Amino acid sequence: MDIHINNILNDLKKDNIQAYLLTKFTNVEYISNYKPTSFAFCIIKENPIIYVSSMDMEIAKNNSSIEIKEYESFEVMIGELKAEGIKSLAIEPTLPFSTYEKFRNDFSIESKNYVDKQRMIKTPSEIEKITKATEIAQKSFLDLDILNNANMENEVAFDLVRLMIENGAEKESFDTIVTSGANSSLPHAIPQAKKLDQPILIDWGAIYEGYCSDNTRTMVYTEKQQEIWDIVAEAHDKAIKAIRPGLKCCEIDKVARDIIIDYGYGDRFIHSTGHSLGLDIHETPGFSLRDETVVEKGMVITVEPGIYIEGEFGVRLEDTVSISKRGNVIGDLPLDIV
Amino acid sequence: MDIHINNILNDLKKDNIQAYLLTKFTNVEYISNYKPTSFAFCIIKENPIIYVSSMDMEIAKNNSSIEIKEYESFEVMIGELKAEGIKSLAIEPTLPFSTYEKFRNDFSIESKNYVDKQRMIKTPSEIEKITKATEIAQKSFLDLDILNNANMENEVAFDLVRLMIENGAEKESFDTIVTSGANSSLPHAIPQAKKLDQPILIDWGAIYEGYCSDNTRTMVYTEKQQEIWDIVAEAHDKAIKAIRPGLKCCEIDKVARDIIIDYGYGDRFIHSTGHSLGLDIHETPGFSLRDETVVEKGMVITVEPGIYIEGEFGVRLEDTVSISKRGNVIGDLPLDIV
Repeated sequence: MDIHINNILNDLKKDNIQAYLLTKFTNVEYISNYKPTSFAFCIIKENPIIYVSSMDMEIAKNNSSIEIKEYESFEVMIGELKAEGIKSLAIEPTLPFSTYEKFRNDFSIESKNYVDKQRMIKTPSEIEKITKATEIAQKSFLDLDILNNANMENEVAFDLVRLMIENGAEKESFDTIVTSGANSSLPHAIPQAKKLDQPILIDWGAIYEGYCSDNTRTMVYTEKQQEIWDIVAEAHDKAIKAIRPGLKCCEIDKVARDIIIDYGYGDRFIHSTGHSLGLDIHETPGFSLRDETVVEKGMVITVEPGIYIEGEFGVRLEDTVSISKRGNVIGDLPLDIV
Repeated sequence: MDIHINNILNDLKKDNIQAYLLTKFTNVEYISNYKPTSFAFCIIKENPIIYVSSMDMEIAKNNSSIEIKEYESFEVMIGELKAEGIKSLAIEPTLPFSTYEKFRNDFSIESKNYVDKQRMIKTPSEIEKITKATEIAQKSFLDLDILNNANMENEVAFDLVRLMIENGAEKESFDTIVTSGANSSLPHAIPQAKKLDQPILIDWGAIYEGYCSDNTRTMVYTEKQQEIWDIVAEAHDKAIKAIRPGLKCCEIDKVARDIIIDYGYGDRFIHSTGHSLGLDIHETPGFSLRDETVVEKGMVITVEPGIYIEGEFGVRLEDTVSISKRGNVIGDLPLDIV
């Protein structure tokens, strides 16, 4: 049986739980190679099964490595589980409350992150896909003649996505951010139908064979912008250099944060230093203030410090780091791209 | 105070609950006009408040009609609610289990769909935005010269999105489906890097001022394809004609389903007849087998019967219907567009 499923069965045994219910699309995909498009109830037990929406039966039949069955109703599904003698169920932390409510009368329920835990450590094949996604995204960025086009923000975003698809991406890995001028102080700015102003901040990524990439570059023009850029670049570089297995995630966050604090901008670094990525653009663990997870070989985590000065501008610089004995930046796009 | 908030306060009073916690982005947007980009805890009580992520403070300050406060930690937030004497909390059915777990020790908790219930009935201004989104999407479809371009599926999808943005959309309202040939039997097909085959099924929509549109057209070429198209068109037309306030949603589903069953394709109509839309592309209620909701004036629901013949092709035809004394199709794109 598949190693991922075996790991879950071992976790279940250890915790004395009989089955694990998965409904999150990327978790079902991770375990079965079938990514739901509507809904699915994947039950990992000695004989794993996925209850599949009628809409998805054809795609599930063609892709799932696990036995599938057409979903009829909650009653039927719960009846079948009970008939097998299942009384205890582990669920994902993200399970919607209303779904939990439908199970809680018939099963003892505990929330477990068995799959998230496995997904933290990427296999070489997963790292290859993230690398390929990054290469596509970075090549597309270079293909994009941003500065010679006096374009609208949303057109630049659009052109970048088109280039990524032409270069082999399935799609963008999140809503592409192209923001400029004062709006760049919003970490999750939405590209506007307005001409590019200064500075220009672009946060973008591709999906390749299901796996995400994530980068940010900021092009600065004034002395003040350059001064902030230099601080962010120092935080970016030193955090990456500090990464090694055995440290806690929060210690890497602290390296970046302390540099920005020292320069007096601590209160303008308004998010975490980074997040894991893979099948999802945001996975755990993250380089954040409170994340005590120990860094391990095989993790892939972004490093993306930023400084945001409300009403003026923002600067963020982001690379994705694959961790072996140290942190290796994926891709080779220079930080100072202009 | 805002009518939406007043309605929630009345619901809370009736159910003898002190506060309602909202975290779903579109629910927070519906109530406050601020759409979170990271996370937010919106608490509706006599003095409503939103605990906002530091990342979102600037955007929340500029948009929220409700008092905001920077989120520090769960402990601080829960401490403040308890200090106000709050002991009972309503939550959204979609709340992730892990968030529920953090509240359940300090509050009695019930799941309530107060906001979803309000969102079922659209205001004239909401219907205007859905109409504008539909007009943009339909104009873009007509601007797209599909048949004179021997394009790849994913390029056509891409061109359609670009046209929607040029025509004033914020973005696509869901991943645009352009599928053809045998793949069209997958209701949620992903556009491929392959030349358009026959038939061609396009399911697309725009977002305008936050509001979604949704349409599907299928262009058929063979006699067999035309035969199936005619059945689906009959189901589409008759279901729309049947819509009126007072009927149950499942009765409208039955109108479409019975026609397809009569022609012998009942088991190939593998999804519901339609879903509501608004700030989200899928809202409740829906025209489905089991939805007993009574149709009311102000609802906006799609009608999208389909027949999917595995290994051969699929046909789906979809319009969005705004309900007054009867069902009025939004937009004016003919069903037989070729």
